[in-house]
Amino acid sequence: MKKWTRDHAVNQDQLDALAPMRELFELPPGQIYLCGNSLGPLPKGAAPRLKTLLEKEWAYDLVQGWNRHDWMSLPSSTGDKIARLVGAGPGEIMVTDSTSLNLYKALYAALRLQSSRKPGARIVVTEKENFPSDLYMAGQLCRDLGCELVKASQPENLNDLLNEQASVLMLTEVNYRSARRHDMRQLTRLAHQAGALVIWDLAHSAGALPVDLKGCDADFAVGCGYKYLCGGPGAPGYIWIHPRLADHCHQPLTGWLGHARPFAFEDHYEPAAGSSRFLCGTPPVLSMAALDAGLDLILTVENFGGMAGVWQKSLALSDMFMTLIDEGPSFRNLRVETPRDPLSRGSHVSLSLQGELDGSGYALMQALIARGVVGDFRSGDSGDPGRPDLLRFGITPLYLRYVDVFDAVEQLGQVIARGEWRESRYQKKAWVT
Amino acid sequence: MKKWTRDHAVNQDQLDALAPMRELFELPPGQIYLCGNSLGPLPKGAAPRLKTLLEKEWAYDLVQGWNRHDWMSLPSSTGDKIARLVGAGPGEIMVTDSTSLNLYKALYAALRLQSSRKPGARIVVTEKENFPSDLYMAGQLCRDLGCELVKASQPENLNDLLNEQASVLMLTEVNYRSARRHDMRQLTRLAHQAGALVIWDLAHSAGALPVDLKGCDADFAVGCGYKYLCGGPGAPGYIWIHPRLADHCHQPLTGWLGHARPFAFEDHYEPAAGSSRFLCGTPPVLSMAALDAGLDLILTVENFGGMAGVWQKSLALSDMFMTLIDEGPSFRNLRVETPRDPLSRGSHVSLSLQGELDGSGYALMQALIARGVVGDFRSGDSGDPGRPDLLRFGITPLYLRYVDVFDAVEQLGQVIARGEWRESRYQKKAWVT
Repeated sequence: MKKWTRDHAVNQDQLDALAPMRELFELPPGQIYLCGNSLGPLPKGAAPRLKTLLEKEWAYDLVQGWNRHDWMSLPSSTGDKIARLVGAGPGEIMVTDSTSLNLYKALYAALRLQSSRKPGARIVVTEKENFPSDLYMAGQLCRDLGCELVKASQPENLNDLLNEQASVLMLTEVNYRSARRHDMRQLTRLAHQAGALVIWDLAHSAGALPVDLKGCDADFAVGCGYKYLCGGPGAPGYIWIHPRLADHCHQPLTGWLGHARPFAFEDHYEPAAGSSRFLCGTPPVLSMAALDAGLDLILTVENFGGMAGVWQKSLALSDMFMTLIDEGPSFRNLRVETPRDPLSRGSHVSLSLQGELDGSGYALMQALIARGVVGDFRSGDSGDPGRPDLLRFGITPLYLRYVDVFDAVEQLGQVIARGEWRESRYQKKAWVT
Repeated sequence: MKKWTRDHAVNQDQLDALAPMRELFELPPGQIYLCGNSLGPLPKGAAPRLKTLLEKEWAYDLVQGWNRHDWMSLPSSTGDKIARLVGAGPGEIMVTDSTSLNLYKALYAALRLQSSRKPGARIVVTEKENFPSDLYMAGQLCRDLGCELVKASQPENLNDLLNEQASVLMLTEVNYRSARRHDMRQLTRLAHQAGALVIWDLAHSAGALPVDLKGCDADFAVGCGYKYLCGGPGAPGYIWIHPRLADHCHQPLTGWLGHARPFAFEDHYEPAAGSSRFLCGTPPVLSMAALDAGLDLILTVENFGGMAGVWQKSLALSDMFMTLIDEGPSFRNLRVETPRDPLSRGSHVSLSLQGELDGSGYALMQALIARGVVGDFRSGDSGDPGRPDLLRFGITPLYLRYVDVFDAVEQLGQVIARGEWRESRYQKKAWVT
């Protein structure tokens, strides 16, 4: 493997087909932003879009804006843009509510379908390392429906759990801590062989790597708008239901927007056709417009090689990052926790801390941020002694340059070599880390 | 009763203590907007607030914005502003999700509380004319929990339903069609006497009329951000739980933001203290900031006589509207459906149509809108032959002048007198009406 130098990184940037896309983002000067897996940066199109929405559409058209600007179709029209990133078709994805709420709807719908398709199977299979909010939502719903949520301690154990008791397999494709990636195609097939339905959480997948929901024959998917899709803080989530299932699904959050005729104000609830029945309340137009602007930016990749090119660059940047960590003399107390196999990882790199760095991950990240390199810290102290503290670095090829990754590792090396993380000002914890 | 003239209306405006507040809104020139009960107009502070949020906070602080700008506290800090309008205390209201979702959480929590407080009571009492989305949500939840949703055909029948079977009384204070207003204090007392808990939907109350949740000893309340609170299209809803109950409540949508320590990413769900346990997913910061700007505007009323003054002006404007309809020679085929008693109505006026106008309400409203007077139409054809078509006119005293109401009725008279509603261009229905 070649030795990386800064000149080499600069050279790679000159060859990079995606390089022009960086100009479509508003990025803070002097900062290397490695947290796009948590909150994507501002697309240059978003602020003008919101300005028009507020000062022209809302201000001048008021309630008539719902018709004149088709605000009511945003859940579907924005969903169609996500569909192009994840191998789904038009009308199949609704942007609505949050990831957690969409997971609740999908799991309820799947369990109701299974109560006639595979009666008696009462287990929802997931894994211990799934995102906590997914586990909380599913745990409560399982208790309410008399089902059981069974968490595999290791991904290798999932197969054994996909037995005659398994009703639903519910997983996040890319792990939020380690970036370990499941094999969606293989696990979907195993679940289907066991008669189970599958729900995929794409929070750390969509917009970062190629996803092929229909190619994998998945059943349900949910995801997040504010990470790789650049929809802004707290952007709405989305839900996908395979069209072979959607018209047979019932979800519990039966608000008026999921009704077949919401503005008829009928006495009885009749679900709309297809995925629209997974809508609930009035769409949050401001937040949705920002997400729509983010997607318009992301879809520009179709002019620059598409998601396959994004993914190739992500792998190259991550490989560079991990190689530099492996080789750097300052990094003997850091260990790469992200899988090396390109097929088994997502688009961030996580490092655990050993030796004198053990227990100082938060302060280390704060010291790095003070140098203008923004990643984040995920504590391991959540009831599992085997779960390490992590430094997370999001690798987002639409706006990150090779030279950014090179410089970020340089800065990290200096923070460690100079012991900057020991300074008391970096010890105090803020709420969101 | 005095005869209204335009000069008299102009004179009333000169005496109006609330008149300066109109300048705080961005209103379309040449339009009389009588739909603030559906979508409030743009507060002048909202667009600059969103511009700063996008171009400074999100763009430059990125993920650190969560700490630096305390985005994570918006559900509570914005809720505290609503609390001042509805007789609740700090920390008791969370702005989150939609009205429908908050109703679902409140009803589930109430039914769980009652399963030990009043075991065996399995009936949720509501009324047939409640907002359809509330009925849809509650109907599905009741089926899932083995309860029954019983709908009073008339408000007078509610008392009889508050018996030993009644677990929860769930009502919208002000009816979305007729503006008929329930007696919150009296019905809450009757429900409590029967051992039932009470959930109030304040969608058409908060920001329009004085509400005193704690003074009425209510148990739960939910409401809407985009009507009288001027939060923008699809603004988030909110939920209030009486502090004597909040820590004993369990709600089913157990997302990470309702956890006692969301960023510890613990394996097991432990609800946060108080109303915070009713949070679910990441707050939609853009939509919440706009609502926050709307509330900053509304709370300016505290310098102009407070909600009592707003309510007095609403009554005066509505009285004027109804008197002009009663007396106008063009209006013999319109009937006021809104109660005349000031204690029994909210802040809009609804008219049904008789004789030659019967069946032409939609076209009539479209013809009126073409003249720059914007109300809306609510069809009666929703499974109840006794339910009339309605023209609805929102009476929003923060920006409406007496002369606006006078002129609106004049225009309505001309539309009818000249038969403009017969023109074919007004017949075609749009999706949102």
